[in-house]
Amino acid sequence: MIEYQAFRVELKDKVAHVAINRPDKVNAMNAAFWSEIVEIFRWIDETDEVRVVVLSGEGKHFSAGIDLQLLAQAATQMGADVGRNAERLRRQILTLQASFNAVDNCRKPVIAAIQGYCIGGAIDLIAACDMRYCTLDAQFSIKEIDMGMAADVGTLQRLPRIIGDGMMRELAYTGRAVDGREAQAIGLVNRTYADQPELMTAVFELASDIAAKSPVAIRGTKEMIRYMRDHRVDDGLEYIATWNAAMLQSADLKVAMAAHMSKQKPDFAD
Amino acid sequence: MIEYQAFRVELKDKVAHVAINRPDKVNAMNAAFWSEIVEIFRWIDETDEVRVVVLSGEGKHFSAGIDLQLLAQAATQMGADVGRNAERLRRQILTLQASFNAVDNCRKPVIAAIQGYCIGGAIDLIAACDMRYCTLDAQFSIKEIDMGMAADVGTLQRLPRIIGDGMMRELAYTGRAVDGREAQAIGLVNRTYADQPELMTAVFELASDIAAKSPVAIRGTKEMIRYMRDHRVDDGLEYIATWNAAMLQSADLKVAMAAHMSKQKPDFAD
Amino acid sequence: MIEYQAFRVELKDKVAHVAINRPDKVNAMNAAFWSEIVEIFRWIDETDEVRVVVLSGEGKHFSAGIDLQLLAQAATQMGADVGRNAERLRRQILTLQASFNAVDNCRKPVIAAIQGYCIGGAIDLIAACDMRYCTLDAQFSIKEIDMGMAADVGTLQRLPRIIGDGMMRELAYTGRAVDGREAQAIGLVNRTYADQPELMTAVFELASDIAAKSPVAIRGTKEMIRYMRDHRVDDGLEYIATWNAAMLQSADLKVAMAAHMSKQKPDFAD
Amino acid sequence: MIEYQAFRVELKDKVAHVAINRPDKVNAMNAAFWSEIVEIFRWIDETDEVRVVVLSGEGKHFSAGIDLQLLAQAATQMGADVGRNAERLRRQILTLQASFNAVDNCRKPVIAAIQGYCIGGAIDLIAACDMRYCTLDAQFSIKEIDMGMAADVGTLQRLPRIIGDGMMRELAYTGRAVDGREAQAIGLVNRTYADQPELMTAVFELASDIAAKSPVAIRGTKEMIRYMRDHRVDDGLEYIATWNAAMLQSADLKVAMAAHMSKQKPDFAD
Amino acid sequence: MIEYQAFRVELKDKVAHVAINRPDKVNAMNAAFWSEIVEIFRWIDETDEVRVVVLSGEGKHFSAGIDLQLLAQAATQMGADVGRNAERLRRQILTLQASFNAVDNCRKPVIAAIQGYCIGGAIDLIAACDMRYCTLDAQFSIKEIDMGMAADVGTLQRLPRIIGDGMMRELAYTGRAVDGREAQAIGLVNRTYADQPELMTAVFELASDIAAKSPVAIRGTKEMIRYMRDHRVDDGLEYIATWNAAMLQSADLKVAMAAHMSKQKPDFAD
Amino acid sequence: MIEYQAFRVELKDKVAHVAINRPDKVNAMNAAFWSEIVEIFRWIDETDEVRVVVLSGEGKHFSAGIDLQLLAQAATQMGADVGRNAERLRRQILTLQASFNAVDNCRKPVIAAIQGYCIGGAIDLIAACDMRYCTLDAQFSIKEIDMGMAADVGTLQRLPRIIGDGMMRELAYTGRAVDGREAQAIGLVNRTYADQPELMTAVFELASDIAAKSPVAIRGTKEMIRYMRDHRVDDGLEYIATWNAAMLQSADLKVAMAAHMSKQKPDFAD
Repeated sequence: MIEYQAFRVELKDKVAHVAINRPDKVNAMNAAFWSEIVEIFRWIDETDEVRVVVLSGEGKHFSAGIDLQLLAQAATQMGADVGRNAERLRRQILTLQASFNAVDNCRKPVIAAIQGYCIGGAIDLIAACDMRYCTLDAQFSIKEIDMGMAADVGTLQRLPRIIGDGMMRELAYTGRAVDGREAQAIGLVNRTYADQPELMTAVFELASDIAAKSPVAIRGTKEMIRYMRDHRVDDGLEYIATWNAAMLQSADLKVAMAAHMSKQKPDFAD
Repeated sequence: MIEYQAFRVELKDKVAHVAINRPDKVNAMNAAFWSEIVEIFRWIDETDEVRVVVLSGEGKHFSAGIDLQLLAQAATQMGADVGRNAERLRRQILTLQASFNAVDNCRKPVIAAIQGYCIGGAIDLIAACDMRYCTLDAQFSIKEIDMGMAADVGTLQRLPRIIGDGMMRELAYTGRAVDGREAQAIGLVNRTYADQPELMTAVFELASDIAAKSPVAIRGTKEMIRYMRDHRVDDGLEYIATWNAAMLQSADLKVAMAAHMSKQKPDFAD
Repeated sequence: MIEYQAFRVELKDKVAHVAINRPDKVNAMNAAFWSEIVEIFRWIDETDEVRVVVLSGEGKHFSAGIDLQLLAQAATQMGADVGRNAERLRRQILTLQASFNAVDNCRKPVIAAIQGYCIGGAIDLIAACDMRYCTLDAQFSIKEIDMGMAADVGTLQRLPRIIGDGMMRELAYTGRAVDGREAQAIGLVNRTYADQPELMTAVFELASDIAAKSPVAIRGTKEMIRYMRDHRVDDGLEYIATWNAAMLQSADLKVAMAAHMSKQKPDFAD
Repeated sequence: MIEYQAFRVELKDKVAHVAINRPDKVNAMNAAFWSEIVEIFRWIDETDEVRVVVLSGEGKHFSAGIDLQLLAQAATQMGADVGRNAERLRRQILTLQASFNAVDNCRKPVIAAIQGYCIGGAIDLIAACDMRYCTLDAQFSIKEIDMGMAADVGTLQRLPRIIGDGMMRELAYTGRAVDGREAQAIGLVNRTYADQPELMTAVFELASDIAAKSPVAIRGTKEMIRYMRDHRVDDGLEYIATWNAAMLQSADLKVAMAAHMSKQKPDFAD
Repeated sequence: MIEYQAFRVELKDKVAHVAINRPDKVNAMNAAFWSEIVEIFRWIDETDEVRVVVLSGEGKHFSAGIDLQLLAQAATQMGADVGRNAERLRRQILTLQASFNAVDNCRKPVIAAIQGYCIGGAIDLIAACDMRYCTLDAQFSIKEIDMGMAADVGTLQRLPRIIGDGMMRELAYTGRAVDGREAQAIGLVNRTYADQPELMTAVFELASDIAAKSPVAIRGTKEMIRYMRDHRVDDGLEYIATWNAAMLQSADLKVAMAAHMSKQKPDFAD
Repeated sequence: MIEYQAFRVELKDKVAHVAINRPDKVNAMNAAFWSEIVEIFRWIDETDEVRVVVLSGEGKHFSAGIDLQLLAQAATQMGADVGRNAERLRRQILTLQASFNAVDNCRKPVIAAIQGYCIGGAIDLIAACDMRYCTLDAQFSIKEIDMGMAADVGTLQRLPRIIGDGMMRELAYTGRAVDGREAQAIGLVNRTYADQPELMTAVFELASDIAAKSPVAIRGTKEMIRYMRDHRVDDGLEYIATWNAAMLQSADLKVAMAAHMSKQKPDFAD
């Protein structure tokens, strides 16, 4: 297993566990974080054995968002020409966004397990995951507004597809904290748990359940839901028809059918 | 009234009742089902007297989804060339999709009344209806994942517009069962009822209520909501302006206004 | 302060209070209403001092929607040629829509505070606001259906982005009344309050909170959420990158950072 | 071969020849025309042996467009209510459009061969074909403007993708006649020929050439070009990747490769 | 007739002639130009008698584009904060764009007649017109590139729909001059004329021809072509069906039909 | 300068010359080609000194397209499961596409200089460039159709935006060769030259001309034209307004203005 500075990564029983691993810094997202996450998700995408991903944060909190030192450092690189600064900033933002696009575009489902603070950039991150589960005492906040800026690595783009429009605006304009119970009520997380051990147990059970399904079917399902976030119903219908034109010729249907007939658990190839 | 193999169809007081009628097969969707549903909804579309549709399933369950014999049969038609198989499969999927598009595109509102199992293809079907109501013991499951395939007749395309993104993915990846109460909580159904008689009474009352409105106004309203699922707000505003340019010249406004003034129930032409 | 016939407008502590002011007519939307609202929101857009808007209705009710005299008057302008009538109607509808587009496109957040009736055109209006809060006894109804017409000034276009698709259709087809509690449950309002004084206190506190944030950041945030209602995630990411390329060069980030370090409240320029 | 009232249809050497066959009526499009063309193209789509279609008109002219009797007849069906008339008209137009959509959506390439008049509805028709070739004395005119109406069965939708925007508007506003030479200069036709025998010889040679290619590859190519008329480049790239994921597993690539190596003509299965 | 500072406007025989009237300044676009053009086109849109517009430039040249004084003046308004400057600039650009959107969105066809220089902002302007005609010695240049900026009032948005992509980029990157003959070859203008008198005669003949058509049909045709610039073919087909649902009930069809039968010129109401 | 296997790359006077350098293999695109082109264009994007790119082929021909050995090798990697093969193929195609996306998305203009064969994948490549210039004896052919496949690395996606729809289909269905003169007539190239020396002289003059412009303005211009290929006019107008909100604060406008006043050549910073 490769060593990472900002993450701990494990693969067990077809589930990859990706944990942000800077607990003494409240898992703040430093330079290593932003580049390593791309490598990790490239590895996940290319490794057939990985079927599901659990994303969590070590320690008491999920993550406090972007490391303020990184922002401060970016500020020092400004030159005299506004136009050229703008070009540089634009490309830096696009690069940061690419780190979370790697999560969003990952072919395998990514489950976020959240406890404690989930703030600023951490919201951008979990909005790029497939599903979110948290402890009751989790605390979500779109903190960018208090840094004097509009969030620019995904929260404002992906969260409106996940929670309602009205509450989305309230949270984005005020940056107020949302706890686990409210997070579930507004659809930000699927379920809450009493504490972190319960949360992790539940999340890994869910991950195991998904890992036992046909990986071809799971990948197709994820691709279709991702596609529908941005496309028309008629385009989506045509796309799944084209996709399944190949995938229904896979052996997985026969494996599933045989298991269904014999009332046994199917065993799908990676 | 035309006789159907897979359905029972009745028209009474401007409400068409379309019931899947294979209770001994858990209303599984066989070949007759897929072709008859197109005919039935063409008739509904063309028959001015029909103003609202109630879609239900005979017996203890709404429907167990696609008839597995149909899938097995499709499998036997595979030839040696992967490319030509793909073309054939693609067109078969498009044909199945067209059956549910007929429901979705129907100019009259379609209300689904669901009890017991609502599984696999049955979810694709109710996702193409306007509104859904169920008994408390209804059981919803995106079962395709356990057949080793991504759902391809509408669930993955239409359901993300109806329930939240996070829960959508959980249900599609796991195929787990959802009961009536949870279905209401996540927005899959509008309301639940204690048992089927209560459900049917409530649904037909709702249908009657809608049937008493101006059919011109109901059709325009449905078309606009359908349109907004896939279009921009500015396009939608322009579309309703163009639509109402003709429809506001209808007599129904005067009928409605006169009824409003005289505090009587309006009586709109078909 | 300019005098308006249909509104009362006040600016205090960076919050503009726009109140529909025809309480004896249940705040019905007359000709003055439709033109003055455009002027008011142009003034809001151009006045740097205004950072947030509260929109409310004087008296017992928020608003009963469009003034029926206005509809009756439009009916009298019909000529003999259906085509030319259609053109005229189409342009009149587009003009009415423009009044609420002015609210939707306003660069500053607009908070609706609703008590009593919120009916017909009033739903179109609040759907164009950023967020909605109401009293428990508020009563919402998409009343256009009972006028024999499809709603055409925004409800059918904007509300499906705010509440769920299934309930959207039920409310639009039946026009049935929804009270405060249900409105919150379906996401139509963010929160309910016991009575109007409580509502107004809460709404102005929220407005003050937002008014204290960086106006550059608030405007960017609103623009991004508005944009995402109609655009793809990838387009949205590119748009915020381009937007922030300029805005991250604003002094507001330094002001915010300095305040954060010194644990004091930041003070942003208009 | 099935008999048609408005067409003569032949299948020879994998090329279907569909000729409008009402030369004494200048091939005006009557009721039979509009329904038969749907049947014919369904047959083409489902008949593996057909690989390419040539569409032409018998006699001195390609076609004078919609039969005016049909328009006159539609006028007589108008009722008293403008709204209900509008609904009926809207559906009639959609039905007429569906006839030409059948041409546009046909999986096999459709080549139009045009001599003499090609007027009104005939322009809508050829705009739905893949390619157009004509004699020098062909005469094209968007004649609907002189009937007091905007063309509504495809010209205004498809032609702007074929010819330049500026000339498109001139022709649509004036209805002026364009001869073969100008038609080629503006991209309306690919090539012109001295007379009809030359035209038909050239068109059938082209058809034969295409019929000898891999039908899997031709269909994929057509689908992709059709798709790009309305979609983004990135969506198109993803779509062809998904499509070819199945199609590159076809035997046709090996057949083509073997023929290439042996410098012989490949022979592809239908 | 209203007096304008930057224009001369005449209405004769249903054709409005809008001439930029600052010949001694090479018709450079000053502050008056940008605001008056909005007023003029609002008047055109609202005046039924106007059916077609001819847009030209007084003197030897069509226009040298934006008045450099205006740019210089904008530069002086810059404050210290880059973010607030950016907001102000963004809104100024949107305001300038709105001036040419008024031309683009005008319901009546707008014909540009161009002689001599047509440079910078003048290209943005003619790209917003329906059709363009010029003298042989006309000289087109996307001059913004030599001002150190990307053109931002429409050239880069509208011209790629009019001329080919490859040549579009060459002209936009180099700003090189294009004469009348080349302009016609690349589709920038529909036709060239030896000198200005010939040009104006031809353009007014064309305008008269269009003015004699059904105004309902002309407006529908323009709306559809404008719509197709940005929409899908299927959306366009649905839009014209909805549009014509009203417009085919206009008297203009009967007038046209009667004129056709009696072989006389039809006379359509405004 | 880095050494490449498939390319020769030079940077001189702000123009990067990228030459495919396998003349003895007719510049066929081998594995090195597909990966090196990504690196080269990343370097171009990140190197401020490079302002324009010239892309050419060493020897008598531009390029014969993809190396058939690469295709043969891909074929050998096929496994037993059609579904898993499909997933692998889909990802391989996406990877190949990414190589040409690197050209398309490059922030600096890319000019293709073509002599001799430009076949199959070479068409996909030049379709991703900004502009194309060729010798009279150049020979273009969409050769994929003769390999039994639909072109899948960009030709079918990008070429329809460059040449007309009708001719696009003819060339894609038949694979017939197009020479320089016809290529210019259909808009595939901007201009033709008698032989390669003339071609290269002209192309480098053009490159120099563009390299002397403001790089900020050139990049904005390219981004806008690229954007308009896939977006609406109104979105494009908003995008350039947001873009120029920053870029008009660049020093380049002042440099350009000063040069304009003093009638000297401006000198822009990289």
